[in-house]
Amino acid sequence: MRRALALAASPGVPLHPNPRVGCVLLAPDGTVVGEGYHRGAGSPHAEVEALAAAGDRALGATAVVTLEPCNHTGRTGPCVQALIAAGIRRVVVAQRDPNPIAGGGLEALAEAGIQVDAGMLVDDAVALNRSWTFAHVHGRPFVTWKFASTLDGRSAAADGSSRWVSSAPARRDAHLLRGLCDTMLVGTNTVEVDDPQLTVRDDDDQPLPVQPLRAVMGERDLPEDRRILDDQAPTVHLRTRDPAQALATLYHDHERHHVFLEGGPTLAAAFLKAGLVDEVVAYVAPALLGDGRTAVGQLGIQSIDQALRFDLVDTTVIGKGPEANVRLVLTPRKES
Amino acid sequence: MRRALALAASPGVPLHPNPRVGCVLLAPDGTVVGEGYHRGAGSPHAEVEALAAAGDRALGATAVVTLEPCNHTGRTGPCVQALIAAGIRRVVVAQRDPNPIAGGGLEALAEAGIQVDAGMLVDDAVALNRSWTFAHVHGRPFVTWKFASTLDGRSAAADGSSRWVSSAPARRDAHLLRGLCDTMLVGTNTVEVDDPQLTVRDDDDQPLPVQPLRAVMGERDLPEDRRILDDQAPTVHLRTRDPAQALATLYHDHERHHVFLEGGPTLAAAFLKAGLVDEVVAYVAPALLGDGRTAVGQLGIQSIDQALRFDLVDTTVIGKGPEANVRLVLTPRKES
Ligand SMILES: NC(=O)c1ccc[n+]([C@@H]2O[C@H](COP(=O)([O-])OP(=O)(O)OC[C@H]3O[C@@H](n4cnc5c(N)ncnc54)[C@H](OP(=O)(O)O)[C@@H]3O)[C@@H](O)[C@H]2O)c1
Ligand SMILES: NC(=O)c1ccc[n+]([C@@H]2O[C@H](COP(=O)([O-])OP(=O)(O)OC[C@H]3O[C@@H](n4cnc5c(N)ncnc54)[C@H](OP(=O)(O)O)[C@@H]3O)[C@@H](O)[C@H]2O)c1
Repeated sequence: MRRALALAASPGVPLHPNPRVGCVLLAPDGTVVGEGYHRGAGSPHAEVEALAAAGDRALGATAVVTLEPCNHTGRTGPCVQALIAAGIRRVVVAQRDPNPIAGGGLEALAEAGIQVDAGMLVDDAVALNRSWTFAHVHGRPFVTWKFASTLDGRSAAADGSSRWVSSAPARRDAHLLRGLCDTMLVGTNTVEVDDPQLTVRDDDDQPLPVQPLRAVMGERDLPEDRRILDDQAPTVHLRTRDPAQALATLYHDHERHHVFLEGGPTLAAAFLKAGLVDEVVAYVAPALLGDGRTAVGQLGIQSIDQALRFDLVDTTVIGKGPEANVRLVLTPRKES
Repeated sequence: MRRALALAASPGVPLHPNPRVGCVLLAPDGTVVGEGYHRGAGSPHAEVEALAAAGDRALGATAVVTLEPCNHTGRTGPCVQALIAAGIRRVVVAQRDPNPIAGGGLEALAEAGIQVDAGMLVDDAVALNRSWTFAHVHGRPFVTWKFASTLDGRSAAADGSSRWVSSAPARRDAHLLRGLCDTMLVGTNTVEVDDPQLTVRDDDDQPLPVQPLRAVMGERDLPEDRRILDDQAPTVHLRTRDPAQALATLYHDHERHHVFLEGGPTLAAAFLKAGLVDEVVAYVAPALLGDGRTAVGQLGIQSIDQALRFDLVDTTVIGKGPEANVRLVLTPRKES
């Protein structure tokens, strides 16, 4: 299974929209007769790749797969049929498929008389496809809210200026995190006021070949000259103020699993109030403004015991010397 | 000199108001003939203690002292005279005395025909008495501004409640830092609204035998029933709104070298605007309020390039699990 996980995590595999999957076929004497991994939407599934490599030697073999084999016909045929047809004797999986459409693979295999096991190294398998798993379990994308502020919680000065609250290394770090998500989300007002382009660029400021979806949320029309509407990446305008509805649309209509919520404060507050922020990434600059827009809008909180509490997952200093900013990663505290 | 520094840093020596000083006397052949350190105001100086230990063997010896020997008669006689009288041949010091009243010791020794040297391990010596050195160089106490806030920069909720923004371990840590200062300073409004006692207590909540001075700043009279006016520690009311004047009074009239500025936001803003904050200690709780009093009042800053910038000196997570808070230590950035 460790080998199957390593295969799944092969470099160069796009993170979206499909899960990363690895498969190893073992002959009854334990020798490896085939390996495979999924290289992204449209390519063969890991099991199919491994079966092709094994050929006749798949007969009587054990298939070790990081994810439950699919039982539906998507862009490729169901792996369950392929495994049965090849004469596989036993299937061991780490993670069961959380996707209700693709699930039921183990049951179908068992019905065909194949011995099945699930759960081996399941935590590693889930970690490999964190947001994909989350999205299918919850029926909505995982939401990371990112913001930059001064030590006194300001995201912009009194006159609205905000270039730059955070240091260059912190902005580069945020850019890297953007690239790990499949959607960037902002409110209509940020588009009107800031006119961000919201593309992911490399160190030479060139856009990457695969761009996350750019999403704008709010009922207002967007001015046509906004940079978010250029041809550098796809853009979707979610004409709603309901965070749950916006996330459902991103999941069901756009196959999106990980939203990078970049503000502004009003939109961030709406997601926080709805309990729809799963992770917070804050870049805190060692500076004070004493005034100006705060990073998050009103949350309807009156007293200190209603404060939204988080668990501190990571604290890292990004950048050196005068460029040092503190990056905090938090997850909502589960009341126990 | 390392031995002299270690003597100076002996445990149990009160930090205030006198500097920590150590002295080693070496015979011409290099053997140690006497050692001493200063045990706090009213006790003999390090040199005198070492000379007493050495007796006749001080004749022709070299005195290695962490601080330039004093040349004035304070609570004890001048060390310069004692060293000359004992027949010391050479004096090596780390730090020259920044106190204009006590200085001139090396010149007086040289005039008496004693060979003098200064500067050996001076950084260590200065670090040993950081706030004492700072106060005498600048004619005012070193100011540490401490505050606690949420990640969005709030020190209290909308209804004013602030118990507790920070976790128990963070509050204990702040208490330890309080005990390292000789003065705690708050504004009249904090006394009116919060009625803090401002004493330093041990883990069993018992007040320590030596308490820092409690100082309140502002023109208003204090209600007589305030806890800050109890008999647990001395209290001074500085009836001014001028931070520079308040600090001058604390230095000249009360021999104070290190102020722990504990708020509120109005007073903190006044010190920041006057450039009279030398260190910031911030406890950031992984929580959001979205509203409520900010940790610092208006600073008169309009645009982002006027932000008060600091250097990040230290980032430490205080407490574990749900009690984890982030402590940041900052110093004002010197424009270069
Ligand atoms: N430092 C940072 O990290 C950062 C990041 C981004 C932005 N910013 C700053 O934030 C400013 C914009 O922030 P903002 O708070 O004014 O705007 P925003 O959050 O970008 O957008 C607010 C708008 O979103 C729409 N909306 C969608 N769902 C909503 C809901 N549930 N509740 C309320 N409104 C909803 C509303 O417009 P409709 O009328 O169209 O529905 C609303 O006016 C910019 O000036 C920018 O400088 C800072
Ligand atoms: N979380 C924390 O770390 C923390 C710490 C302390 C306090 N607090 C909160 O802060 C609140 C009190 O803060 P605050 O800002 O209202 O009061 P404050 O800063 O404690 O006191 C303000 C008062 O100080 C006097 N003052 C002295 N020098 C001044 C100057 N240069 N400029 C302006 N005023 C000066 C003025 O009163 P006169 O009229 O008497 O001159 C002024 O009204 C409390 O409710 C408490 O909850 C929070």
